[in-house]
Amino acid sequence: MSAHYQAPLRDIRFLINELLQGGRTDEIEKFSEVTPDLIDAILEEGARICENEFLAANAPGDEQGCTYHPDTRSVTTPNEYKQAYKAFAEGGWLSMALDEAYGGQAMPHLLGFVMEEMSCSANMSLSMYPGLTIGAMNLISAHASEELKHKYLPRMATGEWTGTMCLTEPQCGTDLGLIKSKAVPNDDGSFALTGNKIWITSGEHDLADNIIHLVLAKLPDAPSGVKGISLFLVPKFLGEEAKDENRNPIWCTGLEHKMGIKGSATCFISLEEATGWLVGEPHRGLHAMFTMMNDARLMVGLQGLGASVSAYQTALAFAKERQQSRSVTGPKQPNQPADTITVHPDVRRMLLRQKTMIEANRALAYWTGMHIDVARHHKDPDQRQAADDFVQLLTPIVKAHLTDEGSTCCNLAIQTLGGSGYTKDWGIEQLARDVRITRIYEGTNGIQALDLVGRKLPSNGGRAMRSLLSLINDDIAKLEQQPHSEQVRHALQDLQTATLWLSKEGLKDPEQAAQAASPFLRLMGLTLGGWLWLKMAALAKEALDKGSSEAAFYNAKIKSAAFFLSKVLPETRLLLKEIEAGKEPLMAFLDEEF
Amino acid sequence: MSAHYQAPLRDIRFLINELLQGGRTDEIEKFSEVTPDLIDAILEEGARICENEFLAANAPGDEQGCTYHPDTRSVTTPNEYKQAYKAFAEGGWLSMALDEAYGGQAMPHLLGFVMEEMSCSANMSLSMYPGLTIGAMNLISAHASEELKHKYLPRMATGEWTGTMCLTEPQCGTDLGLIKSKAVPNDDGSFALTGNKIWITSGEHDLADNIIHLVLAKLPDAPSGVKGISLFLVPKFLGEEAKDENRNPIWCTGLEHKMGIKGSATCFISLEEATGWLVGEPHRGLHAMFTMMNDARLMVGLQGLGASVSAYQTALAFAKERQQSRSVTGPKQPNQPADTITVHPDVRRMLLRQKTMIEANRALAYWTGMHIDVARHHKDPDQRQAADDFVQLLTPIVKAHLTDEGSTCCNLAIQTLGGSGYTKDWGIEQLARDVRITRIYEGTNGIQALDLVGRKLPSNGGRAMRSLLSLINDDIAKLEQQPHSEQVRHALQDLQTATLWLSKEGLKDPEQAAQAASPFLRLMGLTLGGWLWLKMAALAKEALDKGSSEAAFYNAKIKSAAFFLSKVLPETRLLLKEIEAGKEPLMAFLDEEF
Repeated sequence: MSAHYQAPLRDIRFLINELLQGGRTDEIEKFSEVTPDLIDAILEEGARICENEFLAANAPGDEQGCTYHPDTRSVTTPNEYKQAYKAFAEGGWLSMALDEAYGGQAMPHLLGFVMEEMSCSANMSLSMYPGLTIGAMNLISAHASEELKHKYLPRMATGEWTGTMCLTEPQCGTDLGLIKSKAVPNDDGSFALTGNKIWITSGEHDLADNIIHLVLAKLPDAPSGVKGISLFLVPKFLGEEAKDENRNPIWCTGLEHKMGIKGSATCFISLEEATGWLVGEPHRGLHAMFTMMNDARLMVGLQGLGASVSAYQTALAFAKERQQSRSVTGPKQPNQPADTITVHPDVRRMLLRQKTMIEANRALAYWTGMHIDVARHHKDPDQRQAADDFVQLLTPIVKAHLTDEGSTCCNLAIQTLGGSGYTKDWGIEQLARDVRITRIYEGTNGIQALDLVGRKLPSNGGRAMRSLLSLINDDIAKLEQQPHSEQVRHALQDLQTATLWLSKEGLKDPEQAAQAASPFLRLMGLTLGGWLWLKMAALAKEALDKGSSEAAFYNAKIKSAAFFLSKVLPETRLLLKEIEAGKEPLMAFLDEEF
Repeated sequence: MSAHYQAPLRDIRFLINELLQGGRTDEIEKFSEVTPDLIDAILEEGARICENEFLAANAPGDEQGCTYHPDTRSVTTPNEYKQAYKAFAEGGWLSMALDEAYGGQAMPHLLGFVMEEMSCSANMSLSMYPGLTIGAMNLISAHASEELKHKYLPRMATGEWTGTMCLTEPQCGTDLGLIKSKAVPNDDGSFALTGNKIWITSGEHDLADNIIHLVLAKLPDAPSGVKGISLFLVPKFLGEEAKDENRNPIWCTGLEHKMGIKGSATCFISLEEATGWLVGEPHRGLHAMFTMMNDARLMVGLQGLGASVSAYQTALAFAKERQQSRSVTGPKQPNQPADTITVHPDVRRMLLRQKTMIEANRALAYWTGMHIDVARHHKDPDQRQAADDFVQLLTPIVKAHLTDEGSTCCNLAIQTLGGSGYTKDWGIEQLARDVRITRIYEGTNGIQALDLVGRKLPSNGGRAMRSLLSLINDDIAKLEQQPHSEQVRHALQDLQTATLWLSKEGLKDPEQAAQAASPFLRLMGLTLGGWLWLKMAALAKEALDKGSSEAAFYNAKIKSAAFFLSKVLPETRLLLKEIEAGKEPLMAFLDEEF
């Protein structure tokens, strides 16, 4: 009776080697030494640490949570976290994608995606300490001065120091234009920062010697609104050593008490003329922060995916053991007191809904991850641009769709176990509580949907969307002999109709676009899943035709595609109808009529 | 910053007085003194205790949980529970529907439905102590000997003693045929019971002097399977007083550690030759227990509904206060730093989804509750039969659909608050954790769906379903001038098509019925909601046409119907397609392919 996690390496290799053809590393000079064997070895080592240290610390972390000590304004993390974090840091997992110049290993981003998924399957709360650090390193790499890079990146890369992003304030979450924190220039080129931040993940803890905060604040001459926000690097300790005389007055004043992710310290932070340095240009802080936020949004999508993977594995292991009632067509295991519950169609419905959604969404995430590498490192600027278009377009979908479905799948896993799923014994209820936050932070899923329809779709005259629709259309044409390809064609038509509706009605009336945003995002997420299942089924058929010895593996792919395309994908039509029903039923309500 | 609950008495009166025409109490002689004024007074007093004592004990109950003391094998409930339970018991709320002969007040069951909803909005965990007691009283009333009734009912009616139902054992939850507990006859007509039970709600606690367990066990000569199960009454204390020499060896050996309902003691129970008395006939225990289970299933539906009501109220109160970003059509509150979030279509989408589903489902539950009274007390046997048909048919839908939607609505409420919803501060995360169990216990929702399609639909040649479909059809014909009536007609057609598909394909192959069960139940729940919204909108229009002074109230009903019928109800078509996609995509998987 315990949480179950075995890294799904066979499925992951199927995606990287077969669907993504090695992640296109062969087209990128920087990755000339990244061979399939090397990728394999890295993933196996990553799987080992997740299945062992990270998983072992997960339930105890939920039980103990984080403790705030008001006298020292410090935070203690769960006991088991120290060892697991140390193993992760010493394994070099924080520096994987960082440039070699700052102590990194310059590996593909795609591998970071896989590692994020696996570590969140095993221990989402713990994963957030290195996760935020990697995000902060990306931001510093992209926007900070060489001096700041050389000072901070190498010690963050080893995990000795960790990072945060300090955006939210009590009066503003979604609406960062309302930020009140102030930064006043000092004589030496640094700034004195004052203000209150909330919801600061890893804002204070005992896993590392120093914490490098990236803080949004306003300069004295700042214009109002989002165009007046600047970004600053504010370390907990000034200087190399974590000693009292180096302490910068950026304090944790308390912790949130949350539904889940209890091992993750979610801090109230108070800056009391804390010393910081400008990152990027004045008033362009939000622009710089978007580097980190976009990364963070993709990582949150992988958190949602990761949690549902271990929930599904636990549900499957339970269902294969639990004996209850007989098959409606007569006993299947007559020598046992009852049949295992996998004989029941409704149990299969729950398991397959999880399995096929997880695999579709993993394919979507990795496909996006591969394009980050192409966008950053491909020698051909057109390829870079095309890949970046996809990453920009798909970021809100990976964030929102994978986390919505992460929640749904964890809840289906609970349901598969019945009463056992509701107890602490099997660990799924923790996964459901932990994963619930992923639909909220880094921009709620409603905000992701607005980003998709309001910014990403119309960007560059709709270039990215046209290109994606055309790619899917071509693939369907190539694969029209595959079973259920007509379902994918229908979904694509629904997506095209909805896109046209948006460009027509949404342009006339932005409330029409806003009311359509959430169903549109889901429609697009499902259609992408259908497209990817069609491709995966075709690859599986090819492997079987070539006489693969892994018949069960590839047959499962073909049957999974059939399930997804016939039982899940038809929802696109419903979503189209919801969009077309328009804003009137929502906007007609007067305030007093709610 | 705290959980919000104000009993929605205006909405409740709308249903009882306008939709249900007073609950048809005027047709029932037994209820000749139950006037609308009396009902009003009862509901107001019930609302008061829920809004005060019950709500105040809710968050502390979650925080403290129940504590097991191994030395005395006893359980302590949360501190605040004692006073709240006492107020409830002293208010006479346990005895409301009980016969006067045993100390009851012989009030309509419908009022018990309202009280269950309100008490679960305020404090679901605490409500379970009286809730199980009421269920146990119903069972004893229906099946026990006069001697047992007179001995136990009066003291249960006052809340001095509480009740349980002891069904589940480690090896059997859904499949009660696997029960191992034994009952051996004693010389004096009593029995000695031995066995282990799990998941026993209120199995041990400190709120009452005695606990009356209703236990399923097998007699020595019992046939195997579900036809060999008998039912026994096993009190914690034999005799009138709770003193050591009266202690019956039925012990609590531990508590479950659960995701939610932490104030509800979920016990492991061990019977060590405990003394009990047979209730009903030998080997017919499951039949008798179904009296209690059917009641309990309806009550669980109301738990799901109740939790979502306070979650929605809290989300609405938050949304009306929280200012964030501007309306996409320009500032609506230009003198404020930002607009309240109710201007955003996506926030309205979440709020209205909750509001309109809650009101549809409340109407469905109360409509069912009214028919219990008609089925039991109407002078005309045909009316009794017709009403009982509806209650039988709708019980699995009220249980499963209201709890599925209870979960969905609590999650939408969390999402409406964003990060705040994920904290303990607003109480919604507790509601979401508490309500999660309602989809599982008293028969998982998958089991409810099988009960619907396997038993309730075909029962008496489909008489109940034909009668319900015909009633809805007639109402649509009468109301076809109402806006969106064609949507209800479409939903009804989907339901009829699905019913035909089931009777054709399900009869040939029970796995086809089983794979269709869950989507069918949902299809039926939504269609019933659409039908009831059509009726409610027509009543609202009538009131407005008559010049009602409550324009906002009735306009909201008409707009809610428009939202539900145009944005929610079209899902019926998707569910029909899922049913028609058939079993193949599920059953094709070999064990090793999962």
